[in-house]
Amino acid sequence: MTRRLAVAGAGAIGLSVAREAAHAGWAVTVFDPAPGSGASWVAGGMLAPVTEAWPGEEDLLALGLDSVARWPEFAAALSAEAGTDAGLHPAGTVVAATGSGDRDELTALAGYLESLGRPVQRLTGRELRRLEPAIGPDVRGGLSVPGDPSVDNRRLLAALRAACGRAGVTVDERAVAAVRDDGARVTGLRLADGTEVAADVVVVAAGAHSSSLHPVLEGLVRPVKGEVLRLTRRPGALPPPARTVRALVDGRPVYAVPRVLPGHGDLVVGATTAENGFDTDVTVGGVRDLLRDAERILPGIAEYALTESAAGLRPGSRDNVPLIGRIGPEGLIAATGHGRNGMLLVPVTAAAVAAVLRDAAVPDAVRAADPRRFTSVAAERS
Amino acid sequence: MTRRLAVAGAGAIGLSVAREAAHAGWAVTVFDPAPGSGASWVAGGMLAPVTEAWPGEEDLLALGLDSVARWPEFAAALSAEAGTDAGLHPAGTVVAATGSGDRDELTALAGYLESLGRPVQRLTGRELRRLEPAIGPDVRGGLSVPGDPSVDNRRLLAALRAACGRAGVTVDERAVAAVRDDGARVTGLRLADGTEVAADVVVVAAGAHSSSLHPVLEGLVRPVKGEVLRLTRRPGALPPPARTVRALVDGRPVYAVPRVLPGHGDLVVGATTAENGFDTDVTVGGVRDLLRDAERILPGIAEYALTESAAGLRPGSRDNVPLIGRIGPEGLIAATGHGRNGMLLVPVTAAAVAAVLRDAAVPDAVRAADPRRFTSVAAERS
Repeated sequence: MTRRLAVAGAGAIGLSVAREAAHAGWAVTVFDPAPGSGASWVAGGMLAPVTEAWPGEEDLLALGLDSVARWPEFAAALSAEAGTDAGLHPAGTVVAATGSGDRDELTALAGYLESLGRPVQRLTGRELRRLEPAIGPDVRGGLSVPGDPSVDNRRLLAALRAACGRAGVTVDERAVAAVRDDGARVTGLRLADGTEVAADVVVVAAGAHSSSLHPVLEGLVRPVKGEVLRLTRRPGALPPPARTVRALVDGRPVYAVPRVLPGHGDLVVGATTAENGFDTDVTVGGVRDLLRDAERILPGIAEYALTESAAGLRPGSRDNVPLIGRIGPEGLIAATGHGRNGMLLVPVTAAAVAAVLRDAAVPDAVRAADPRRFTSVAAERS
Repeated sequence: MTRRLAVAGAGAIGLSVAREAAHAGWAVTVFDPAPGSGASWVAGGMLAPVTEAWPGEEDLLALGLDSVARWPEFAAALSAEAGTDAGLHPAGTVVAATGSGDRDELTALAGYLESLGRPVQRLTGRELRRLEPAIGPDVRGGLSVPGDPSVDNRRLLAALRAACGRAGVTVDERAVAAVRDDGARVTGLRLADGTEVAADVVVVAAGAHSSSLHPVLEGLVRPVKGEVLRLTRRPGALPPPARTVRALVDGRPVYAVPRVLPGHGDLVVGATTAENGFDTDVTVGGVRDLLRDAERILPGIAEYALTESAAGLRPGSRDNVPLIGRIGPEGLIAATGHGRNGMLLVPVTAAAVAAVLRDAAVPDAVRAADPRRFTSVAAERS
């Protein structure tokens, strides 16, 4: 008999999990009151295991490196299935620094990455500008990280929706209130409208909203707001950079991700960070900081149109490593807590959940993301 | 027989002209592909004859003073007719200056206004903050101008639409291509879809688009782009000012107009000035300047939500005085070229056009706005 999988959340993670499960023969329904409209829609789309790496987060770096290596094949297969480009942009990333404090931090990052054997190239300001003429004179130095590409997250979502449709996934635009279980194993979902839906397995991929769906997830995922702007080049304005440009400006991180194909803005500029509950207001202070910092690095954007301002809620975990795998009652799987790295971790998350669904071992790098690391039951078991 | 009036343009000017004409017994149709969506929708809503005054523009000051005096009665009558508040906010304006250059310019303005007998009150920074606690410590001095109130332009448009409806005005959402005439007098309109519409009199109230509607208007009105932001107070943020706050920041003018009733943003911040054709992009540079300058004066807005960014096209005339009255063939009336002062000049413009329609004399202050001042025929006649 076909087993029923219910996925809570139709963001990039939920849809990619649903697609893999449908391929494996599951009867899949994804529940989301506004599919593809959350953090996945707002995201900048950096696939940046290296330039997001921080000393002490080696588990996250390993997970990101595993996933970024999967991206080309994932995107190619998805594009073919969907009949539409999944949006992978293979150009890498340059990191720019302005003040001396920012340069010191960059040098420390370069040293750390070199100590891990990751290829990074240190560049002077002049060398950076030769690579990316859009970078302005305030930039004094930086790094080239060719291995950190990007994805047009909105093309990705469209491709995932199309591929899910072709794979027979049902998208149900009702909100999930809770995962139901009988004490031992999940029995399905309770929807916000009171309907109960039966399922053999439930994947919680509800991003920042995941914690409220089952008591075992309570307190494990919190919303971390990020404001993101979308700019469009106007006639006469300088071209956008070819690569993702990241920078530290007076200690504040900022990024600009180019969109190669037209349609959703030529340049995505992000992102602020604020922990303020489920607030998705775009604030004056946030926009002011993003514009100021991005203009400092890419002065030509002053002539761009500001075509969109939005805020998304990153699903933050306690240790910045996501929650991917079984947790709580039998049949409950988490695929959430991806923080800033949701787009990056789409392929490895989908592969890991697919492995769990067929009772196979997850990829090595995913072991650190075992959600049971946070539960006392897991502590007893381990 | 009822005479037919066609009005090109359903902004605040066109609608207020239409309403008066309908009251006077005309059969009125207003043509606009998107009624109430242009500069009237984007506007800040300052009614600022005094704080917009510049030495050498005494005609414009006189026109503005005439119109601002009409506003209370105009708003009261309109509100009663429409059954909805027309949005007049009687609180006045304070003008703030930061740097010494800005303060010098303000002192010059105060001296000029005093020389004209206009009441203005000079204030220290401390006195300004006592009046408006939202004003920040960078403000070193300013003026209080109680006679410059404001209007919620979107409430005004809604009230005008309602009043026009009740007065029997027809709104036709087709675009006007040109005013038709037989060489001596107007015969009606040609619409963009090719339809010809007969009319005895045509009022051109098409704002920045007016010049293209008849050869006699060619070159007399040009688009002057202005970017305007709408902010909404968030929980915990400081209250907005009670009065309109205007400022010069490093020589750049900025204003913040509070909205008393909720619905369209708590604070309207504007406005940039650019002459770039019919371009209504909101630019990075424009938003950056407005936010920076407004925050300098009202630092608490950093915590506000940025809920709207838009650009409108002010209809700029050659001498900054509008074009109100007969021009060209018999039956053609202009009501355009209002520049930054469209909202302010609504009542006097409507009254003047009503006078022209009944062959009466226009108010004294409107004589300077005679459109024939630009035409050689007028030069011969005068």
